[in-house]
Amino acid sequence: MWQLYQFPICPFSRKVRLVLGEKGVGYELVRESPWTRRDEFVDMNPAGQTPVMVDAGRGVVLIDSQAIVEYFEETVDKAVTINGTAAGRAEIRRLTSWFDMQFYRDVTGPLLHERLIKRIAHRVTPDARALREAMKGAVGHLDYTDYLLDHRQWLGGATMSLADLTAAAHISVADYLGGIDWKGHEQTARWYRGLKSRPSFRPLLAERMELVGPPSHYDNPDF
Amino acid sequence: MWQLYQFPICPFSRKVRLVLGEKGVGYELVRESPWTRRDEFVDMNPAGQTPVMVDAGRGVVLIDSQAIVEYFEETVDKAVTINGTAAGRAEIRRLTSWFDMQFYRDVTGPLLHERLIKRIAHRVTPDARALREAMKGAVGHLDYTDYLLDHRQWLGGATMSLADLTAAAHISVADYLGGIDWKGHEQTARWYRGLKSRPSFRPLLAERMELVGPPSHYDNPDF
Repeated sequence: MWQLYQFPICPFSRKVRLVLGEKGVGYELVRESPWTRRDEFVDMNPAGQTPVMVDAGRGVVLIDSQAIVEYFEETVDKAVTINGTAAGRAEIRRLTSWFDMQFYRDVTGPLLHERLIKRIAHRVTPDARALREAMKGAVGHLDYTDYLLDHRQWLGGATMSLADLTAAAHISVADYLGGIDWKGHEQTARWYRGLKSRPSFRPLLAERMELVGPPSHYDNPDF
Repeated sequence: MWQLYQFPICPFSRKVRLVLGEKGVGYELVRESPWTRRDEFVDMNPAGQTPVMVDAGRGVVLIDSQAIVEYFEETVDKAVTINGTAAGRAEIRRLTSWFDMQFYRDVTGPLLHERLIKRIAHRVTPDARALREAMKGAVGHLDYTDYLLDHRQWLGGATMSLADLTAAAHISVADYLGGIDWKGHEQTARWYRGLKSRPSFRPLLAERMELVGPPSHYDNPDF
């Protein structure tokens, strides 16, 4: 049985969980708070980050959300999430990297730092300017997803792909942390409502972090 | 014919060039300085980053170094750089991400900012403390590659892989910018000497940035 080391609003763990959910791969959750830098966890993953997946029976340890996703793409045929032509797959990987790098740098990373880690680990209040910057960043990124969805049915092309799952993972964490203003982003909101109602997504929306709760619209599929 | 938008000491472009060199894929270099945020370039890649590869004849645009590498892994059989079992490939992708994310965050990114972009774009002197931090970061990372090479022939396992090419790409840029102290890192130095003498690597070592030159040992394969 796979074990997945994660915390409820880790965007990279959510990306992996959505892929595992679509593919029907079973796993057990292990709660890990990477900001505590627990020795046994850092020994396992020197980068000190979630997600990590472990199959103790077979001695397999998988680290890094993209390496994990590529592993399950290679080993599980069901629900291919990096699909289409080679150029189409490159576009899916480009957008996946966009959310994991740019959106994380501008939005999810600062929100997690200000609203979660400062609260839980340092017990200080968030910096209002950093929060405003992150929310402004989110507006820019959602302008881009609106633009993509004006031209395509899904973010990466004609079918649902890893680009959508990764984007939804990050956006759901930003939404949990109150960083998304949905006004003026009707295309992205419609696409996100569709993803929220998928069986792979629902369990994630039901989970809560200690001390930090989401706004009331967060888990409503028809917000 | 592929065109590759890059500048001589972009670590992500070097990673792609090493893979293309190993695979024998031909391409033409197009010089791009991403810090100028040239309109036509940002229109092509909204992330504004090198490398970008374009095959104008077929209308294919590839963005993001990992998406580009995976594209050529999928379309060119020669010199597979993500090789071995599924778990082995996951380990190669973990280390590739390690260098693209952690090493870049700690070492290559700060060195490029302090020594290249500040000089060329802002015409200000580098911050001595940031440089010291980057060089200290490099020591920590080379301790890790020493450790890996104590246990394995190559970074990712028994054969040369994308992990080695990516690590060498980043280390070569850090070395160009004077950020690597080779003393005390004999395993990594020996491994790096081997990579420097490969036909895929030699053209990169001959190239120079305007205004910013490398230390004298930089392109010596027997330093």
